[in-house]
Amino acid sequence: MTLRSASIDFQPADSVSYADVASVREAVEERLQAHVTTLPGVPDNLQGAIRHALLGKSKRIRPVLLYLIADPATRHRDAALDLGCAVEMVHTASLILDDLPCMDDAAMRRQRPTTHIAFGQATAILSAIAMLTRAFGIIAELESVPEKTRVKLSTLLSDAIGWDGLVAGQEIDVNGRHQLTSADKIEELNWLKTGVLFVAAAEMGAVLRGLDEPRVDAVRRFARHFGVAFQTADDLIDRNGSAGEAGKDVQKDGDKATLVSLFGASQAHLTCQEHLAHAEQALIDSGVNAAPIREMMQRLFATRKAVA
Amino acid sequence: MTLRSASIDFQPADSVSYADVASVREAVEERLQAHVTTLPGVPDNLQGAIRHALLGKSKRIRPVLLYLIADPATRHRDAALDLGCAVEMVHTASLILDDLPCMDDAAMRRQRPTTHIAFGQATAILSAIAMLTRAFGIIAELESVPEKTRVKLSTLLSDAIGWDGLVAGQEIDVNGRHQLTSADKIEELNWLKTGVLFVAAAEMGAVLRGLDEPRVDAVRRFARHFGVAFQTADDLIDRNGSAGEAGKDVQKDGDKATLVSLFGASQAHLTCQEHLAHAEQALIDSGVNAAPIREMMQRLFATRKAVA
Repeated sequence: MTLRSASIDFQPADSVSYADVASVREAVEERLQAHVTTLPGVPDNLQGAIRHALLGKSKRIRPVLLYLIADPATRHRDAALDLGCAVEMVHTASLILDDLPCMDDAAMRRQRPTTHIAFGQATAILSAIAMLTRAFGIIAELESVPEKTRVKLSTLLSDAIGWDGLVAGQEIDVNGRHQLTSADKIEELNWLKTGVLFVAAAEMGAVLRGLDEPRVDAVRRFARHFGVAFQTADDLIDRNGSAGEAGKDVQKDGDKATLVSLFGASQAHLTCQEHLAHAEQALIDSGVNAAPIREMMQRLFATRKAVA
Repeated sequence: MTLRSASIDFQPADSVSYADVASVREAVEERLQAHVTTLPGVPDNLQGAIRHALLGKSKRIRPVLLYLIADPATRHRDAALDLGCAVEMVHTASLILDDLPCMDDAAMRRQRPTTHIAFGQATAILSAIAMLTRAFGIIAELESVPEKTRVKLSTLLSDAIGWDGLVAGQEIDVNGRHQLTSADKIEELNWLKTGVLFVAAAEMGAVLRGLDEPRVDAVRRFARHFGVAFQTADDLIDRNGSAGEAGKDVQKDGDKATLVSLFGASQAHLTCQEHLAHAEQALIDSGVNAAPIREMMQRLFATRKAVA
C-alpha cells in the first residue's frame, strides 16, 4: 500500500469522531437546527410550530442510538446525522399527535407547552405531517448513500411508522386499552409505541454501516428490549414522577392499563431489568462498539431509577 | 430483427391496455382495494377508517392522470397502478385532515360521513398518517422500477406534500386566508392546495415512463394549469353547487377569500378557462398521448360547468 492510497481514510484535524454520547448528542442538535432554521416558502406559523416541537429539550435517544450503531467513518458522518434527524422528526411528529386533545390531551412536552397549545390544533397537526414527510425526503436525498440502501432505509421507516407499527400502537393506546388484560398484551403495546422506532433507528444505523444479517438481527433484538424497557420505565415515571422531572405532563395514564397499574411498580421494575439484561446480551452478540451505547443507557436508566 | 426479438414486447391475450379513462379508473379502484383489503396486525377500528376514507366514491383523478401519462407497457402496468395508489393515499390523507373540526369541520365527503364523524378524531388522524406513510412504503417496494427511479419518486412525493407544498397550502387555507387580497395570492394558494399533487402525480408518470427533461417540464406545466383550473372550479362548486352534486359539504368556504368571493363567478370561470387553454398547449408540447387525458378533463369540467 502506497502512502497515497493509505491516506484515503485519513481524518483531517478538524474532523470530530464523536466517540462519546454527549458529543454525538450535540452534533445531532446542531444538525436538527440546520434542517429547520431557514425554511423559505414555509408559512411563519408552521415554521414556528416545527421549530417549537423539534427543538425542545430532548435526550435525542433515537438519533444518538442510530449514530452509535452506524459508528460512521468521517465521510459518512453527515449521512448518519441526517438519518438520525429523519427519525427524530418522525418521533417528534408522533409526540405532537399523541398530545392532541383527542388523544392524550397533554399541555406540556419537552419542557414547553405542547404544540397545539402554542400554535393551535390545525398547525400542530400540519407540522407533524410536514416533519413526517420531510423524513422521507431526507432519506431520498442522502447523496453519499447508494440508492439501493436509501430504498431499504425508506422501507424500514415506512414499516416502523405504518398501520401495523407506531400508528397501530397509538390507536390501541387511545381506543383499545380496555382490551389489555394480560402482561403480554401490554408488552405488545409498549413494543408498538416505543420499540418499533427504537428498532428502526438501530437497524438504520446497522444498514448504513453495512453489517451482515446475523449482526443486524442482534442489533434489532438489542433495540427491541431496550425500547420496551424504556417504555416500561416511562410508565413508572408517569405513575410516580413529577412533571418537572419528566419534562412533560405526568399521571396522564389515569386508569389506563399499564404494567404498573396491573401488576404494581415492583413487578414493572423487574420486567424492565429483564429487558435490559436481554438488551445487554444482544448488544454483545451484535459486535458493535458497546461502550458508548452502555453509557447512554446507564444515563437514561439512572434518571428513571430515581423516580421508580 | 428476428421473430424472437420482436416478440419481447408482445402483449399476451389476457393483458389489458386500459386505453380509455373508465378502464383505468376501474383498474385503480381494484388496486386500491387490494392494498387495504387484508391488513394483518392492524387494529380493526383503524382498518375500518382507512377503508372508509380511501374506498369512498371518487373520480381518482390523480392516479388516472399518472397512469395516462406513464402510458405503461404491460410489464410496467402494476407499477403505474401502485404508484397511483400511493398518490391517492396521500390525497385521501389530506382530505381526512382538511375535514377535521379544527380545519374545515366538514361532515360529508365522498358521499359518506367524514372519517372523524364515523370513527372519531384520533382514529381519523391516525388513518391519515398510516396512508401517508404507506405511500412512501409502496414507492420503496416497486420491485420492477430501478432503485434510482424509486428514490426520485420518493423525493417528488415528499416535496409535493412537504412544508412548502400541500401542508403549506392547508396552513394558509386555515390560518392565512385574511392575507389573500390579490388574485395572484389566491392562485398561489390554489396551486399549493391542488396543483402540487396534480403536478407530482403527472411528473411521477413522466419519470416512470422515462421522458426526457423538456417533455417532463411540459408535463409539469400541463398539470399545474390543470390543477389550478380544477381548484378554481371547485371553489365555484362550493359557492353554487349542492352537496349531492359535490359528494361533500359545500359552502364551507363561508367568508374565505377565493377567486369567486373576491372577483365573482364569471371572473373565476374566465380564469379557469385560461388555465385550461394553457394546459392544452402544454399537453401538446409534452408529446404524450393526449386523447384519453382530454377525455378525462372534458368529463371533469362538464360536471363543473353545470354547477358554475
